Amino acid sequence: MSKNYHVAIVGATGAVGIEMIKVLERRNFPVGKLTLLASARSAGKELPAFGENVKVTELRDDSFDGVDIALFSAGGGISKQYGPLAVKAGAVVVDNSSAFRMDPKVPLVVPEINGADVKNHQGIIANPNCTTAITLMALWPLHQAFGVKRVFAASYQAVSGTGAQAIEELKSQVAAIHAGLPVEKKVYPHQIAFNVLPHVDSFLDTGYTKEEMKMENEGRRIMHLPSFKASVTCVRVPVYRAHSVAVNAEFEKPVSVAQAHDVLAKAPGLKLTDDPKTNTYPLPLNCAGNDDCEVGRLRQDCALDNGLAFWVAGDQLLKGAALNAVQIAELI
Amino acid sequence: MSKNYHVAIVGATGAVGIEMIKVLERRNFPVGKLTLLASARSAGKELPAFGENVKVTELRDDSFDGVDIALFSAGGGISKQYGPLAVKAGAVVVDNSSAFRMDPKVPLVVPEINGADVKNHQGIIANPNCTTAITLMALWPLHQAFGVKRVFAASYQAVSGTGAQAIEELKSQVAAIHAGLPVEKKVYPHQIAFNVLPHVDSFLDTGYTKEEMKMENEGRRIMHLPSFKASVTCVRVPVYRAHSVAVNAEFEKPVSVAQAHDVLAKAPGLKLTDDPKTNTYPLPLNCAGNDDCEVGRLRQDCALDNGLAFWVAGDQLLKGAALNAVQIAELI
Repeated sequence: MSKNYHVAIVGATGAVGIEMIKVLERRNFPVGKLTLLASARSAGKELPAFGENVKVTELRDDSFDGVDIALFSAGGGISKQYGPLAVKAGAVVVDNSSAFRMDPKVPLVVPEINGADVKNHQGIIANPNCTTAITLMALWPLHQAFGVKRVFAASYQAVSGTGAQAIEELKSQVAAIHAGLPVEKKVYPHQIAFNVLPHVDSFLDTGYTKEEMKMENEGRRIMHLPSFKASVTCVRVPVYRAHSVAVNAEFEKPVSVAQAHDVLAKAPGLKLTDDPKTNTYPLPLNCAGNDDCEVGRLRQDCALDNGLAFWVAGDQLLKGAALNAVQIAELI
Repeated sequence: MSKNYHVAIVGATGAVGIEMIKVLERRNFPVGKLTLLASARSAGKELPAFGENVKVTELRDDSFDGVDIALFSAGGGISKQYGPLAVKAGAVVVDNSSAFRMDPKVPLVVPEINGADVKNHQGIIANPNCTTAITLMALWPLHQAFGVKRVFAASYQAVSGTGAQAIEELKSQVAAIHAGLPVEKKVYPHQIAFNVLPHVDSFLDTGYTKEEMKMENEGRRIMHLPSFKASVTCVRVPVYRAHSVAVNAEFEKPVSVAQAHDVLAKAPGLKLTDDPKTNTYPLPLNCAGNDDCEVGRLRQDCALDNGLAFWVAGDQLLKGAALNAVQIAELI
């Protein structure tokens, strides 16, 4: 196909929006026209894209005239308000927010896992939660081979998952501590520098956070596995970029580390980084800026019958957001 | 009893040794004489203790003449070499290293859990691993009420658990990054600033680290529960002081969050910090310097039948080391 597409990015000035531009460039996405949309506050800014400076315009009801593909990453409220308008204007929406993820009419897609679901879309396709997407990159190939029943997981989530202001907050808190000044908190309810917060997203009545339930809820949809169970603790850590997850997974079939290595070594979008003898394991610092997620620390789980323990890390702005969204757009 | 004891601290200049002095002072331990021992390199230093400056002397074979209680925190090698000499000289040894923890002749004790085991000692009593001790402070009261079968856990361990050099390494790496200078690594194999390392202690052939297996091995001995299973991922995080652990625990009996709250609120040495509505949960930054461990984020585990998920944090230099050792000495 030689067709070039008119692509719009909603939330273009945000951490994910900027990555979306870079991913479109890097993957030579056939962009005929690029429309960068943001709030009135950011309108007028210029962002480098495809060798030019593209002016950001204000998101309005009529912003989607002639747009083929609209990539949304400006929060659930904006997606709910403007997503249907973009569809009405003829665009296909790839939405990075949680607004439509559990809507049965909206496919929720990780291209390496359920790319075929894209064809069922009715105008909107949802991009999954970042921690879920990164974990599933390793869990899905294992599921195909051994049949996953449930997982127990604890996350180590970078501040960039919260956005650009959170990156600034960590930086400024570290600088304040360095200078012996008092620490200011704006984004997080508690100091994030030299601390960890067992609190990502808002709390549900069950005591879990919304973020913690996404792995089970979204995992079931993405893997087409309604019986999948996931008990997760999501924790914010003072890391700038890339999430990590410690996983204990129980399978239907017996599984060995050697078998798991074979399966994971062949998995697309995933790098097997597992040689403890040389202190080689996935590190968020090494995953930052990389498209591939990394998996390592594989071991036969000592508290599960058919179980594996492992550690997975990935750049949540890429696989957890911008990369996955552009991969979905490529499937459309 | 009005007897005053001759107490020796082996490794007095280390992070834990210094805490041991403070804990002895704070708890008004009946110290008649205090002998501070360290390597030749540290001998001659003076440390404040009980309102005086006490000179550190070199650890030698004859260092334990007349000593009643010897608190060891200078690594497993020193404990193996000098522990038996101290016993021969008539002292009771409380050892903070892993040297004797799995020796069936040596009680492994958390006073709130199995303080009675102290009476079976043959000269040496072992202090448990810090992450294990902190986790068990919450797990033991739950076990008494509901019967624990197994846990899945992921840790968030502070650099002070590695020692004073690791605190310096985190500080200097942060300062280097702040100044735009290259990061130097001496203590950890990878940068710890703004990173997390799924690697604490050395690797076993199973792929688990020694640290990761301590919760199962030491937990069985401390709780007198040989069937206890624990699959753990131990992770070093850029926090200065206090460890945190995300736990999924399976019990014999059904358990509700309300029941668990009742049990944990009454547990000695533990503070129930669990009010998500007000963003109240245990934070390592708040636990640093406190004797009590904190537990919160209680929820009915969504992937276990009789299960609870929770989050526990504690100062590993205190409950995980110095405090627990002095508590053991108080039982002797």
